[in-house]
Amino acid sequence: MKVGLIGFGKAGKAVANVILQNPDFSLEWVLRNSTLLDHHSVSEFLGIESEDPACIHSLKNMGVDELFDQFPVDIIIDFSSTETIHMYGSAAAERKIKIISAISHYEEKEKKLLKKLSEKTTVFWSPNITLGVNYLLFASSMLKNIAPEVDIEVIEEHFKTKQGISGTAVKIAETLDLEKESINSIRAGGIVGKHEVIFGFPYQTVRLVHESISREAFGNGALFAAQHLINKSTGFYNFEDILRPYFTIQ
Amino acid sequence: MKVGLIGFGKAGKAVANVILQNPDFSLEWVLRNSTLLDHHSVSEFLGIESEDPACIHSLKNMGVDELFDQFPVDIIIDFSSTETIHMYGSAAAERKIKIISAISHYEEKEKKLLKKLSEKTTVFWSPNITLGVNYLLFASSMLKNIAPEVDIEVIEEHFKTKQGISGTAVKIAETLDLEKESINSIRAGGIVGKHEVIFGFPYQTVRLVHESISREAFGNGALFAAQHLINKSTGFYNFEDILRPYFTIQ
Amino acid sequence: MKVGLIGFGKAGKAVANVILQNPDFSLEWVLRNSTLLDHHSVSEFLGIESEDPACIHSLKNMGVDELFDQFPVDIIIDFSSTETIHMYGSAAAERKIKIISAISHYEEKEKKLLKKLSEKTTVFWSPNITLGVNYLLFASSMLKNIAPEVDIEVIEEHFKTKQGISGTAVKIAETLDLEKESINSIRAGGIVGKHEVIFGFPYQTVRLVHESISREAFGNGALFAAQHLINKSTGFYNFEDILRPYFTIQ
Amino acid sequence: MKVGLIGFGKAGKAVANVILQNPDFSLEWVLRNSTLLDHHSVSEFLGIESEDPACIHSLKNMGVDELFDQFPVDIIIDFSSTETIHMYGSAAAERKIKIISAISHYEEKEKKLLKKLSEKTTVFWSPNITLGVNYLLFASSMLKNIAPEVDIEVIEEHFKTKQGISGTAVKIAETLDLEKESINSIRAGGIVGKHEVIFGFPYQTVRLVHESISREAFGNGALFAAQHLINKSTGFYNFEDILRPYFTIQ
Repeated sequence: MKVGLIGFGKAGKAVANVILQNPDFSLEWVLRNSTLLDHHSVSEFLGIESEDPACIHSLKNMGVDELFDQFPVDIIIDFSSTETIHMYGSAAAERKIKIISAISHYEEKEKKLLKKLSEKTTVFWSPNITLGVNYLLFASSMLKNIAPEVDIEVIEEHFKTKQGISGTAVKIAETLDLEKESINSIRAGGIVGKHEVIFGFPYQTVRLVHESISREAFGNGALFAAQHLINKSTGFYNFEDILRPYFTIQ
Repeated sequence: MKVGLIGFGKAGKAVANVILQNPDFSLEWVLRNSTLLDHHSVSEFLGIESEDPACIHSLKNMGVDELFDQFPVDIIIDFSSTETIHMYGSAAAERKIKIISAISHYEEKEKKLLKKLSEKTTVFWSPNITLGVNYLLFASSMLKNIAPEVDIEVIEEHFKTKQGISGTAVKIAETLDLEKESINSIRAGGIVGKHEVIFGFPYQTVRLVHESISREAFGNGALFAAQHLINKSTGFYNFEDILRPYFTIQ
Repeated sequence: MKVGLIGFGKAGKAVANVILQNPDFSLEWVLRNSTLLDHHSVSEFLGIESEDPACIHSLKNMGVDELFDQFPVDIIIDFSSTETIHMYGSAAAERKIKIISAISHYEEKEKKLLKKLSEKTTVFWSPNITLGVNYLLFASSMLKNIAPEVDIEVIEEHFKTKQGISGTAVKIAETLDLEKESINSIRAGGIVGKHEVIFGFPYQTVRLVHESISREAFGNGALFAAQHLINKSTGFYNFEDILRPYFTIQ
Repeated sequence: MKVGLIGFGKAGKAVANVILQNPDFSLEWVLRNSTLLDHHSVSEFLGIESEDPACIHSLKNMGVDELFDQFPVDIIIDFSSTETIHMYGSAAAERKIKIISAISHYEEKEKKLLKKLSEKTTVFWSPNITLGVNYLLFASSMLKNIAPEVDIEVIEEHFKTKQGISGTAVKIAETLDLEKESINSIRAGGIVGKHEVIFGFPYQTVRLVHESISREAFGNGALFAAQHLINKSTGFYNFEDILRPYFTIQ
């Protein structure tokens, strides 16, 4: 499966790292805004042995139509920023290239665009694209279904300089219908990222805990999504849609 | 719903405690082997205010047929010992009294009897009847389905004097198809009971943790089962059967 | 060592339980306000085999001078309420009976009285008398000494109905000079009591965690204090004073 | 304070990273075996802005006497391999350069050499040089002093491919006089490194937990040692020696 990656910040680099090492996917190119590293080899830059042809292109030197035609891909993985979808969305949809977007903060405008694109191609969007966090969301709402009266609290721990409540914790609270007060935010040192959902029963406690080790987890999540989109037809999907079959037991 | 409880050891007492305080269930009697406390009021003995008529009877002074006829119940909850089912099983099944057994170590003989009884009445058996542990089993196998390659390890912590690997940990290992070596048993001080399933991914970790606070959790688990058996017809059920609908999402 | 216990609420009962089972201490009597259970045997009431003579007396039927003279003790352990010290303090101090008070919320008036009594006898006061919590306080301030710049956060977890921030968490925050905002209070189900101090360094994290299992921990703490007061002369002591020698390495 | 670093493997690079960013220390050079990267700038290679003059030298192209004379340092930090001390030890000791070695597995031969060198200069050796782990060792033995009867268990968690029991866990067990059976080793996914010491009391549990985030923690530990060696005279020191004063309370 041929993959194109958009965005080459910290997350983008980690995702490239994972794709290059996965034999089921071939990274064809990385597209970024900056002209820095233009035409460099991705594997060389990251110091990884790989036969994937991946080369870095800058949006400033190469149009998306040209790129998509010269170096065709089956799927685009977007770890860039909110606006980029406007630049490549239609060109990708016309060519039936599947789109996986991991952008956290789309506005209404972008969400509408995604919906429109999903009429022509397969579109997947997940603001937190790790498998673990999405499993946590799913498994937590199951337990709340089973025991609607249980007390639920969330602890999220991150590095000292992280501003605001974590987006993942907010998403957990929304999913479980919790008040903001139920989120407890710890900021200390260099903690990469930990989310804990506590279910307090009268005589027992259940805890679901997710700990991030590194951004490469985004890469695995994106490829997990890619694998599950292979046979999906035109339409708009999220992480729940691909996890649901695993939770449905015969 | 009228309930009869069989067994009045530590677990039985804790379960009686929970039933007496639940307005949806009325504890009609407690049946035990010992003649100690015969004819005592359960609520008085436990120091709980309750209008449930529950009185203690000894199998030595009162036959089960006589008991079931004089003080009819809808459901029997059995926290006694392996053999007791032979004494009350048929009498209960004939009267269509539903049976919930929480006995840990039935032999083949008892399992066969349960199956036979389940042709006439609703029979439920769970060797670990807490909601939390059964949820843990279910949610853990979901995650293993999603990520069959993930590394899984189990930590179980109990009080110093507990002999052998915990039955719950063994059940977790069986369910997740783990080697015995993947179970790590901690024995220290007065730890009531903790089970942790660790899922190690390359760049993230998911942990499912269950902590017991007290034996009353068995009572809540038994009543959770009872509630879900109300409309169940004749047949043999386990905890998975009553959790499954919660995990099946439309 | 002969011990008298004042107070027979939930904590008092748990403490009596521990003393009765400790061969180094003999529980001589329990003194309480209520006349309920007056003259009952403590070991019988608690269902514990013990040769300690302990019998329950009510302050309403028995004066403290009479009690101290008829049933002399070496040490008094007080788990009653704020005001009780005014009733027995002087009588105890005159007889050189050592006083261990575990009362949480003394006002200035009581603190002054303790100081005054400590001129005549050995007086020990600890608002949280478990060994574990006091160790936590000590070990935490050591780490803060070593690394004054480290980020520190506190998580305290208790049962849903517990009002306000836990007194122990407040004490931890005071000891470590933290803002109130650094305390994160979790209230869920029946959690007995958990305190976690998180030290966040840039590239590592240290956590000190204390979990309560039951109130009997107060009893062990009180007897630990008693053992360390045996050879202490007249004066006013707290838990730090008896832990300090263990932290001083030659 | 002028620092020379020996070794530029994964740990060495992380340590260089930390030194370059610390204004109290100036990294003068890195010495390594390999000729790869010879004469490269360390800050450039690591992509860090720093005014430290640090340049990479190879032992194959530059003798230690020449290096120490041309680019004098106050302290050497050694993250290379067991044998290297034989090459630079005497040359450093003669020049009164302080030596901090973080080599894990010295044989008797190297230990003897260190002792000999410590007659001429200040020598410090710690097989695990993070502050957190050394604090853990210290604080744990304090608690064992206080409560010699307590049950102690160790859990250590590391990435799946880590062979054998972690050296740190072995050191913890030695320090606390535990059997090897008390160490529980978890191997799963990409866990960086976690050590937990569990103290099980009858009615409470204390846990000391250390989690590694990245190898940079070694750098901070080495600089912590360096800071505490500034005023130390000739002699042989370990991490305990520099932590001890913090645990001694007046």
